[in-house]
Amino acid sequence: MSLTKGLQIEGLKYAKAILDTVRRMSADTLGVTRQGYSELETDVLHYLQGLGRDLDLEIHCDDAGNVWMTLPGRDRSLPALVSGSHVDSVPQGGNYDGLAGVTAALTVAWWMRRHQFQPERDYTVLMMRCEESSFFGKAYVGSLGMMGRLTPADLLLRHRTQDITLGQSISSCGLDANALTTGKPVIDLEKFGSFIELHIEQGPTLTSNEDVRVGVVTGIRGNVRHKNVVCHGETAHSGAVNKEFRHDAVMATATLIHRLENAWQAWLDKGEDLVVTVGVIRTSATAAISVIPGEVSFTIDMRSLSADTCERFHALMLQEAEKIEKERGVRFVFDKELYTAPGEVDQALSDRLYAAAEANQIPCMRLPSGAGHDAAVIGAAGIPVAMIFVANQNGSHNPHEEMQMKDFMTGVDLLWQTVRTFD
Amino acid sequence: MSLTKGLQIEGLKYAKAILDTVRRMSADTLGVTRQGYSELETDVLHYLQGLGRDLDLEIHCDDAGNVWMTLPGRDRSLPALVSGSHVDSVPQGGNYDGLAGVTAALTVAWWMRRHQFQPERDYTVLMMRCEESSFFGKAYVGSLGMMGRLTPADLLLRHRTQDITLGQSISSCGLDANALTTGKPVIDLEKFGSFIELHIEQGPTLTSNEDVRVGVVTGIRGNVRHKNVVCHGETAHSGAVNKEFRHDAVMATATLIHRLENAWQAWLDKGEDLVVTVGVIRTSATAAISVIPGEVSFTIDMRSLSADTCERFHALMLQEAEKIEKERGVRFVFDKELYTAPGEVDQALSDRLYAAAEANQIPCMRLPSGAGHDAAVIGAAGIPVAMIFVANQNGSHNPHEEMQMKDFMTGVDLLWQTVRTFD
Repeated sequence: MSLTKGLQIEGLKYAKAILDTVRRMSADTLGVTRQGYSELETDVLHYLQGLGRDLDLEIHCDDAGNVWMTLPGRDRSLPALVSGSHVDSVPQGGNYDGLAGVTAALTVAWWMRRHQFQPERDYTVLMMRCEESSFFGKAYVGSLGMMGRLTPADLLLRHRTQDITLGQSISSCGLDANALTTGKPVIDLEKFGSFIELHIEQGPTLTSNEDVRVGVVTGIRGNVRHKNVVCHGETAHSGAVNKEFRHDAVMATATLIHRLENAWQAWLDKGEDLVVTVGVIRTSATAAISVIPGEVSFTIDMRSLSADTCERFHALMLQEAEKIEKERGVRFVFDKELYTAPGEVDQALSDRLYAAAEANQIPCMRLPSGAGHDAAVIGAAGIPVAMIFVANQNGSHNPHEEMQMKDFMTGVDLLWQTVRTFD
Repeated sequence: MSLTKGLQIEGLKYAKAILDTVRRMSADTLGVTRQGYSELETDVLHYLQGLGRDLDLEIHCDDAGNVWMTLPGRDRSLPALVSGSHVDSVPQGGNYDGLAGVTAALTVAWWMRRHQFQPERDYTVLMMRCEESSFFGKAYVGSLGMMGRLTPADLLLRHRTQDITLGQSISSCGLDANALTTGKPVIDLEKFGSFIELHIEQGPTLTSNEDVRVGVVTGIRGNVRHKNVVCHGETAHSGAVNKEFRHDAVMATATLIHRLENAWQAWLDKGEDLVVTVGVIRTSATAAISVIPGEVSFTIDMRSLSADTCERFHALMLQEAEKIEKERGVRFVFDKELYTAPGEVDQALSDRLYAAAEANQIPCMRLPSGAGHDAAVIGAAGIPVAMIFVANQNGSHNPHEEMQMKDFMTGVDLLWQTVRTFD
């Protein structure tokens, strides 16, 4: 059964109809907005469930509101092979972040039905809710919820603009939010065999490559970050104070950033995986062109596939900051660092994906995921997970995010070939 | 007539009473606030005029509202020796910035009267209005106004918090604001012989020196500045984009600042006069910890006694920015640069001050003024000007600005010795 080219060509129309319909349902002035646990997210899930019913899938909604649509296998005692992603988006985001993975999983189910392919084990399309942190400041809410890993404090998080908490938002979908904070999964993990998530790449590695447009993820970068670092210097008149008397917070911080960037390059040259970002920097509200800045605040985000690299680079940053304090008579005050452990993918499952690509002449590379994904939450619960990345233009989390349907269908085909040969 | 120690000791009470009274009149929650062309500024001038009347000085108010109080000399045909400064302050500023120079000039007049000293030429205390730019964004309004150098656009400048223009504010003091925009002085320059301004130093040079607490100014630093430089990079996911694909606006800007600081030190080592300040830096409102910054704005202010140094350092900055653009695929957009020419002091008059210090064993150094002063406006009109600086703690333009009365009285004495031996 070598239906590769068939799926890539025939499946295109099916997949495109899904993506276009959901885009229309959630269009805003610039891109799309599908807020987690909103009426719109529920409506989109209803539409997708309708497609599942058309394919005669067994549909189940878990207590966190995620929807499971199963194509029964020959041996129903085996744990299912699950594929999917999230249906929500950031505000004014792109249509493919999350929805591509749901559409890919559903297109494979459609292809199975079209060709009367019954897998050995159940094949389940998993459509998760509220992966993005944009509205409530909490990511992976749907997947954490199904693992019972939300906290009472999470439920009290307030919407960034509306007068509603995350818990109220979940309840408004007819769900019992408190049931998701017990520490115990609300799903049966015994029946959850493996999870493959297809996702657009949120970086430029694949789209910078002309030939290789899909990839298998080697791991999900963890991070250590400070939400607020303040450099305290001393304000003074910009004309009246000579260099030797200055304690300039901006010059001190620029030096720290510059040294960290040099160290970062040196670590890359040594073969470490690392990205470093100062995303926000701001002098105080009273700063002025003719005043030597006495205070500047900034964020720093350091990510690596290796928790050890994160920790060592963090230590190096503190050392450099201390040196600069002594050199310049300034003081850096770091808020409590936040750690997110790297997400591990299952090596065997990832190798299966890579082998399927090779067997079907699908050009494929291995690459890290810089962003976090529901797959990491599922992997942390002990389920073997793997991820397929598809080339994506113009970054993610913005309305200009883009994906070529040809590349997408290559990814769908890779998923299909893996499912086909799974048992 | 060697009354040196006498003035320093006996004059202290007179000077302190003035400073204390005006401080009480203009106290705010933190320091003092004496807004230019406000009722309070007028009240302070009325109080000071009362002191002038007590000394039987000839009092005249010019069309810009500045007050001239003259102790007649023996030969009234000679142009006057004038001393003074401004009476206004920044909001929540210190009491001495400006008021020290007015008090010094008045204390010298008091001392002359006390000892029946009549100078050869008229000695005039000049009390100017609205030197600070804090409220209307325009500096030296009083001195520019008396030179007829305000513009109609200046008069339309709006108060930073109140619904009033600069022109309306001037008019509210019973003055004809439009008379100050003709390009012609509203005072008789023929009678304005020389101007000596005593002012607190707004930097730490004198206060860092244990022995030398007063100085003679060698010149007023000019500057070239950009109110807004924007570095445009490319936003992207902070975890998903590897170093080689980044166009990080913050890292590019940090590198520019760092390189400029290194060049600055090299220029100082070569003996150039230069200070460089990036007073304000801000990523865009949508910046976030997990987003590679695509845009950062900053100010830059470069000052030197030499216009040539300012221009060459500005050119170097543009060159470095261009290099970084090529290295990193970012773009720096500079708004129109603003030039302020260095203010020249009169060499002969400054030498007289320095000689008077030497003759009276007053420890004195020569030093540049980093800040601008009314003296520069008066000098630009062709009047020989010189400045005395007095050591000042905790910088200026803040409520913690401080000056030791002992140092102040040393400065007053230097002014007196210069006036005494002028003809």
